[in-house]
Amino acid sequence: MCIREGERVYLLLEDGKDYLIRVEKDKVFGTHLGGIAFNEIIGKRFGELVLTTSGRKAFLLQPGIVDNLFHMKRRTQIVYPKDLGFIVLMLDVKEGDRVIDVGLGSGAMCGALARLVGDRGKVYAYERREEFIKVAVENLSIWGVLERVEIKNKDIKDGFEEENIDALFLDVPQPWDYLEVCWRALRGGGRIGIVSPTTPQVVAVLEKLKTLPFIQVEVWESLFRKYKPNPIAFRPYDRMVAHTTYMIFARKVFSENP
Amino acid sequence: MCIREGERVYLLLEDGKDYLIRVEKDKVFGTHLGGIAFNEIIGKRFGELVLTTSGRKAFLLQPGIVDNLFHMKRRTQIVYPKDLGFIVLMLDVKEGDRVIDVGLGSGAMCGALARLVGDRGKVYAYERREEFIKVAVENLSIWGVLERVEIKNKDIKDGFEEENIDALFLDVPQPWDYLEVCWRALRGGGRIGIVSPTTPQVVAVLEKLKTLPFIQVEVWESLFRKYKPNPIAFRPYDRMVAHTTYMIFARKVFSENP
Amino acid sequence: MCIREGERVYLLLEDGKDYLIRVEKDKVFGTHLGGIAFNEIIGKRFGELVLTTSGRKAFLLQPGIVDNLFHMKRRTQIVYPKDLGFIVLMLDVKEGDRVIDVGLGSGAMCGALARLVGDRGKVYAYERREEFIKVAVENLSIWGVLERVEIKNKDIKDGFEEENIDALFLDVPQPWDYLEVCWRALRGGGRIGIVSPTTPQVVAVLEKLKTLPFIQVEVWESLFRKYKPNPIAFRPYDRMVAHTTYMIFARKVFSENP
Amino acid sequence: MCIREGERVYLLLEDGKDYLIRVEKDKVFGTHLGGIAFNEIIGKRFGELVLTTSGRKAFLLQPGIVDNLFHMKRRTQIVYPKDLGFIVLMLDVKEGDRVIDVGLGSGAMCGALARLVGDRGKVYAYERREEFIKVAVENLSIWGVLERVEIKNKDIKDGFEEENIDALFLDVPQPWDYLEVCWRALRGGGRIGIVSPTTPQVVAVLEKLKTLPFIQVEVWESLFRKYKPNPIAFRPYDRMVAHTTYMIFARKVFSENP
Repeated sequence: MCIREGERVYLLLEDGKDYLIRVEKDKVFGTHLGGIAFNEIIGKRFGELVLTTSGRKAFLLQPGIVDNLFHMKRRTQIVYPKDLGFIVLMLDVKEGDRVIDVGLGSGAMCGALARLVGDRGKVYAYERREEFIKVAVENLSIWGVLERVEIKNKDIKDGFEEENIDALFLDVPQPWDYLEVCWRALRGGGRIGIVSPTTPQVVAVLEKLKTLPFIQVEVWESLFRKYKPNPIAFRPYDRMVAHTTYMIFARKVFSENP
Repeated sequence: MCIREGERVYLLLEDGKDYLIRVEKDKVFGTHLGGIAFNEIIGKRFGELVLTTSGRKAFLLQPGIVDNLFHMKRRTQIVYPKDLGFIVLMLDVKEGDRVIDVGLGSGAMCGALARLVGDRGKVYAYERREEFIKVAVENLSIWGVLERVEIKNKDIKDGFEEENIDALFLDVPQPWDYLEVCWRALRGGGRIGIVSPTTPQVVAVLEKLKTLPFIQVEVWESLFRKYKPNPIAFRPYDRMVAHTTYMIFARKVFSENP
Repeated sequence: MCIREGERVYLLLEDGKDYLIRVEKDKVFGTHLGGIAFNEIIGKRFGELVLTTSGRKAFLLQPGIVDNLFHMKRRTQIVYPKDLGFIVLMLDVKEGDRVIDVGLGSGAMCGALARLVGDRGKVYAYERREEFIKVAVENLSIWGVLERVEIKNKDIKDGFEEENIDALFLDVPQPWDYLEVCWRALRGGGRIGIVSPTTPQVVAVLEKLKTLPFIQVEVWESLFRKYKPNPIAFRPYDRMVAHTTYMIFARKVFSENP
Repeated sequence: MCIREGERVYLLLEDGKDYLIRVEKDKVFGTHLGGIAFNEIIGKRFGELVLTTSGRKAFLLQPGIVDNLFHMKRRTQIVYPKDLGFIVLMLDVKEGDRVIDVGLGSGAMCGALARLVGDRGKVYAYERREEFIKVAVENLSIWGVLERVEIKNKDIKDGFEEENIDALFLDVPQPWDYLEVCWRALRGGGRIGIVSPTTPQVVAVLEKLKTLPFIQVEVWESLFRKYKPNPIAFRPYDRMVAHTTYMIFARKVFSENP
């Protein structure tokens, strides 16, 4: 279980600053606390540390999904971990599911979905802005889930190519325009999750949802508060993220009576 | 994809009241809006509805993980979805992981972990109170993940039987007493997540963590706010869950210098 | 400083249940922990206790503004203390101010304003629903501030009878309809505070405010969290008030350029 | 009601930047949007505007208590408006009250209390660090309430010189050391308010309070969320103040039984 050339390493310096790097033989990685020779990293176990050229500690850790999200290359706003964990739970995404992700953006949510659906599942990712797709492909490739994703560079206004989808995540500026095609793509009982940062957007989504056979409509927002981990002065940090997005959830039903 | 005898169905009545039932031939399920003949459910698709004997609508949906949590048989406090989604993200639980869950309780977190580790992963669940194990086994069996779980009816004060664990979730009254054995069970870089409802408990955990080779110690709490999904009067509900637990996270490192 | 006949007393029982009573000679006040003879209260100091007929403790305290608010007779929703303290601060209400209160309702905000403006100030309270005025007069009278209030049973759609008002508090279902007359009543630099529980209402207010010479427009909401005062298990209560109202503030300027 | 020489003016520039100035004849006040000749301000009404030398708008407003707090000279952390409004409500501070303020610091809370007690009331302000008193006196003088305050440069560990105090506000690093002398200074039923930023401090206060005849012990924290006042994109600001202080309240009773 030793760190090899080419491996991705989450580097945490003793002062809390962190980096997500790929180990390249014979190179040196520069940090504000001094340089780190990659050759010293190779062969170490995760959890061990190396010293920088200035004698400061740098811990070697495996990058996890949250580390990936905060260090990914991106050209768009991403869904925050505080919301992401709740969204995939509410969408009930699991092994074998076939899910749709609109819009792909930089691939953050898509990567999280792909990780959850496993090898037997599939994520259909729609993105109409071609310029974002290259970055997303790069990210999904780094995370090792690209083969579970089918990327489509097209607008969804005319509908999706899939049917009987288990769950659909919608992150576009005017989601109300697409709820009808979303309904069509979902299976009976299938779940939709929509993120919108402003209240007039949420209101427009709710108005549209009322005209379609969706039930169990819920709207949530999350506030996560981080505390200073100091036992003798345990208290919240002074400032926090106050708002990222509202989250809207619903489930498809059929309108026909029995 | 039709509903068959023996299948579990999440029943959502038109007034919002819900039930999680198992379909049994020739029986009738009584609700406050009238009875539902199971025979009428059999053969229906999910997403369809049936009428009760009083002519009220009952929608037939697949139970998801959140539905399971809110309708599970339980004898203990469970981790809420608002926290659960964040915890499994911070613990980076994924396919193939080997994780430890202490204490098992009614099996809610264990079920969520087992779902995420897949067939190649494993959850080692410790519970010293024998009386809870039966309920947990029943729940894990219903959710179809029992074979991924190894349940151990023992106190962890003498340590775990496993090593090189990827992630460990600790939900016990005095977690500070067990952090040393947790450290030993984890792999280098492995993640621990601890829940404690009171601040003196968190303080005691933080004090103990400082004496052990753990880094990236973080403490969080989550506040989730639900909104009335009424477009003409969009606003939060009057009351909310104000507190469930504090969540403490850390990662194991080795103390030896290079 | 002894308690006399006719005095109002805030009675706090040993189990936390409280009452706001007026002491009447020779009478007995019944509580779920037994009766209390008023004659025993007369002559006691505030801060002392009496025993009920069942031998349980009942503490004798002066009623404060918060006690008054939670025990007032009311026929309408009142502004909560958590918001009230902030509103009067943002409106900068102080001795000698002339302020307007619309609508009066049961008189809670009016009473708080009247207390702050002192004998040299004045509160002009508008209420178009005659049936509320009797209750409000009763409350203001009990609180001893009725002489500082001028109550007007009229709709404000045609404007106020006052000019050069220092601050104006607006608590009506459709505040946007009245912002122009509010502007006219205020002095230059005068402050307006508006409460509205739903986001579409706030949006409508903001739209209207943009068309009028108001500056420093701010919108706030407050979340107050109460903790269990138990030192060995210090933690927030499980549930809290999640939402009461949005608070909108602005200040009048003149539109003419110099 | 025209602005005169020597008057304090709250200057709000068109871009939202604000200043609290004193008008001095023949001088020019420099801002990042150009200079403002004080002579142009003199004779204007509040609510009017002047143009800077660059032709940008500057509105002339009366400074209110919140403006004063955010623009005061200070050498210490001050109590935020979000907490201050609630504290003075819970302490029931009103005309004629005799209240104690420890420690004085830069005078923010003292000024708020002095404003509320009126000419017939009195604030006794204790501060053991002599270097802060000069700044506080300056602030209280500017706000016009210095004559209602009696400042004492002494440690309170040996007790207060006053008795039968209506309300007491305690803002010191180790409040638990002073609760006994606070109890002695208060009248029966009198109120104490204590602010402490960390949970171990609150726990220590609660432990001490349990040993003294205080009742109705409550602990609160406030979260205030500001919204962008944009009607077409109404939503909270991205970041907010997550924590300032915990607020502890209690009332004095006598221990003797009747």
